[in-house]
Formats: sequence, structure tokens, C-alpha cells
Amino acid sequence: MVAVACAEDVHVLEAVSDAREMANFVLIGDEAGIRKAAQEAGANISGMEIVHEPEPTLACAHAVSLVSQGKAEALMKGLVDTSIIMKAVLSKEAGMRTDRKLSHLAVFELPTYHKLLFVTDAAINIAPDLAEKKEIVQNAVEAVNNLGITSPKVAILAAKEKADPKMPVTMDAAELATMHANGGISGCILDGPLALDNAVSRESAEIKGIKSPVAGDADILMCPNIESGNILYKSLAFLAGGKNGGVVLGAKKPVILTSRADSAESKLISIILGILAGRSIA
Amino acid sequence: MVAVACAEDVHVLEAVSDAREMANFVLIGDEAGIRKAAQEAGANISGMEIVHEPEPTLACAHAVSLVSQGKAEALMKGLVDTSIIMKAVLSKEAGMRTDRKLSHLAVFELPTYHKLLFVTDAAINIAPDLAEKKEIVQNAVEAVNNLGITSPKVAILAAKEKADPKMPVTMDAAELATMHANGGISGCILDGPLALDNAVSRESAEIKGIKSPVAGDADILMCPNIESGNILYKSLAFLAGGKNGGVVLGAKKPVILTSRADSAESKLISIILGILAGRSIA
Repeated sequence: MVAVACAEDVHVLEAVSDAREMANFVLIGDEAGIRKAAQEAGANISGMEIVHEPEPTLACAHAVSLVSQGKAEALMKGLVDTSIIMKAVLSKEAGMRTDRKLSHLAVFELPTYHKLLFVTDAAINIAPDLAEKKEIVQNAVEAVNNLGITSPKVAILAAKEKADPKMPVTMDAAELATMHANGGISGCILDGPLALDNAVSRESAEIKGIKSPVAGDADILMCPNIESGNILYKSLAFLAGGKNGGVVLGAKKPVILTSRADSAESKLISIILGILAGRSIA
Repeated sequence: MVAVACAEDVHVLEAVSDAREMANFVLIGDEAGIRKAAQEAGANISGMEIVHEPEPTLACAHAVSLVSQGKAEALMKGLVDTSIIMKAVLSKEAGMRTDRKLSHLAVFELPTYHKLLFVTDAAINIAPDLAEKKEIVQNAVEAVNNLGITSPKVAILAAKEKADPKMPVTMDAAELATMHANGGISGCILDGPLALDNAVSRESAEIKGIKSPVAGDADILMCPNIESGNILYKSLAFLAGGKNGGVVLGAKKPVILTSRADSAESKLISIILGILAGRSIA
């Protein structure tokens, strides 16, 4: 089940209606508003449970409680500020919070790549330190594991392939690779630092003499800071023709935050990603 | 004229041969090695001047002197370590150095964008401060002006569109926009901070209510750090199907540094970019 907070949103109900075969939804918000928005969207919400809670903060709290009680596999944002729903997610009392950092995970289907490509973190962590990067990687790996990819290949991206004290990002990447080698990060194959070309192009890696199980075959691209993550995300979505979706990880279950600018297809992919990634996260 | 230092390189001579209609080349290096490499490459170097200087450091110094004497419009690296040729470029005695920072400028022709798209800096400046960012922008604008684009639109990229003290990159971007508004950066239309989608997609900018002369129509994308620049460069080249080339700016004339991993087409674009960008840089 997906709990939709403040569901009285035309665009969100359209996506919910598209995804109705894939999951059950409970729509929490202003009931009259929900019915009106559904009509406007041409969305089929028949058979979906509606919980009338017109006050946004309370609607968010109710949706979060469904997750913390184990009734919902994912939380979805409707017509409410991101800051309000995230406050409910992070509330210590509501019980959806974990000791993990929150992080963003995007998924892309690209005409130029041979499989799904996941990107983290394009949206939440501004300048993560080494410990935070480790948590971001673990969030992504567990979510991708839940999608059925048992040992995804993770590329820790940097501007070059060698650890260089002049580039702190490469040193962190090498540390993450060491943590992985020592068993501190599991559920994946991981290598870094890698430049993006080595991560996605076997030919490029071969020319540069890079031998890595990840080279040319990465599933997950871990970016070192929010600028590189956001720019990569946008370049894949807007210049590489990628179909995409994204979720927030690190709480008990994924949080689906679609934005008005997302296409209907992108919203649908985000919902699917949220449902699948949330199947067995603790 | 393009001065090629240590020209005894099969791949470089192949590109030089491809570009022979566009510029004159003087090939500096080991003469026998140059003739052998040209034969191996099937490169036509007939009529090109060859200067026999087998010692790499001296070959680089000679090539740089041709630029500082105003005889060459661009310098090109052959079979020599980047560090050796850049040492010659930066030598105070040789006279090719200016008081500008060196920076990298890449150009892309993309199937998904309506005009050439320039990206800076994917390769040289690791974490430029505000003053350095200004120089990087100016290098790019002057080079693009020399290509005949009189008032390129520059997007100062960040992870979001609003200046936010929690994201120092957005503050620098806003400062650069202020400098531009005050006449401190000229020859261009400039705006920032902008997220990449706003810079290249008018639709995305409209949905977000962003009014900017740059939105959806950027010529130059200025990245805030080497990781975001390098990742953007690689994503456009390897995942967005972009034809690309690149040069180093900030010395008296552009420096063309192709790498073995570049395709023949990419090397040719780099040479053309170097020749055009070097036409009237002081």
C-alpha cells in the first residue's frame, strides 16, 4: 500500500490512477478536494480508500503513521510543501525515522545504456562527508537489492581514476572502496574513484587501462556532491533522453516526492521505484 | 598556424591530416619519428613544415615560442606528457603565459539541443573560488566570442535556482550574476544560479516560473567544481551522444590537448575549436 498525503492534487492523482494496477493506494486529505481533483485529472480512484483529513500537517502525520505501523510500503507527497511532509517523516515520535541519513535515488532508462542506471544523490545531501557518503551508498544498494538486483555494481564517481590528495573527492572514493573491500559496505560490487566514462563505457576504460569489475557496467553512480549529482540527473533527463523517476531513501520506507515539472511517465516510474524499493527495507 | 609539439604521434598526425584544409601546421619533434608515425597513420603531411627537435622539453619550448612570437594561433600536444608541455606553457620566460587562470572549455553538438553547447571547466580547476570562477567565465566567453557568437548566454550552474547560504555554490553564482549586471563580466548575457534543466529547457524553466534570458537557451554552462564539470562532460559525450572537442584557455593562445581515448572526430573538433578560439585572443 502507498499512503498519499494531501492527495487533493490533480497531477498526483493522475499518476496514482496510472499505477492502480501495481499497488493499493490510500488517499489522505480533503475528501471533497480529492474527488474534485480526480475528476479534473480524469483519474480512476474508485475502490481506493479515502481518509478525510483536510489539515495538511495532520494528513502528513496520518500517512506517516501508516508507514510506521507497517501498513504502507511507501509514502507519497501530494499537494503539500516538501518541508511539511519531510518534517512528519523526520518526527521522532511518528516512528518513520531511522538513524540513517536521508538520500535521493534516481533511476534512468537511457537509449544509450544497456541496463537501468541509478544515480545518487541529486537532491538532498549538499556536501556529504565520508561517513555520510557511506550511508548514501548503503541506502542506494539496499533499495536496488530490493528491486531484485542482488549485487549491483557501484561506481564512486570523481573527476579522475586515481586517488590524488589534491582532489579530496578521489580520496573519499578510495576510502569507500577500501571499506567495501573490508566488508564495511555489502550487497554490491563497488569501485572508485572512477570517472563517469570508465563507469559506463568499457571501451573508454580499456583505452585507459582500467581494470575494474564495475568499469563499463555500473548500475549505481554515486556522485560526490549535490552539484555533480543534480547536474548528472538533469543532463540524463533533459539531454540524454532518459526516462526517469526518483525517491527519497533512509526513512523506514521510501518517500515518493514528485514535482509538477515531472512528466506523467516520470511520476509513474517514481511510484514503481518507491513500491519496489520499499518491499523489504527494515 | 598550429604548432604541434612532439608531433611523432600516430593519432595526432591523423587528426592533423584531417584538419589540413583548415590550418597550417608546423610539426616539431623527431623528424624520422614524425615521418614514420605519419606513414603508420596514413596521414598526409606533405607540405607541412617539420622542425627537427627530438628532445621533448626543447620541442615544447620551440612550439611555445612560435605562439609567443605571434606566429602560431594555437599550440597542440603530441607524444609528450601533459605536465611537460604545460610546464612550457606556464614558463615565465617563454612568454605564452598571461595573468589569467588556465581553464578548460569543451564544445558539444548534441542531438537533443538546438545549438552548440559549451561546458567549462571539466578538467583543470578543482574547486575554484569566486575570483577564479570569474576568470573561467571570461576565458570561455572570449573564446566563444572569437568563434563568432557575439553575446553568448552563460548559465552559472548550481543544484537549484535560488541563492541559499546553505549551498555556497548558489551564493557564488548569484555574485557572478551581480558582477555581470555591474559590468564586471562583459561580452555575454549571464544568469545564475540556474539548475541545468532551467538552462537548457524552456519548458522546465516555465513550469518553475523562472524568467531569465538564459533559460532554455544557454550557450555556455559554467560548472561550480571539477567533479560536476567532468561528470557533465562525460555524460554528454558518453550517454547523450554528443560530438565533442575541448581546449585549454587562459594562455596567450589555446592549447589543444587531445587524448588517445578521443575519437578522430573529437580530435578534429578540438583542433577547429583551438584555431577559431585563438583567432583574436590577446
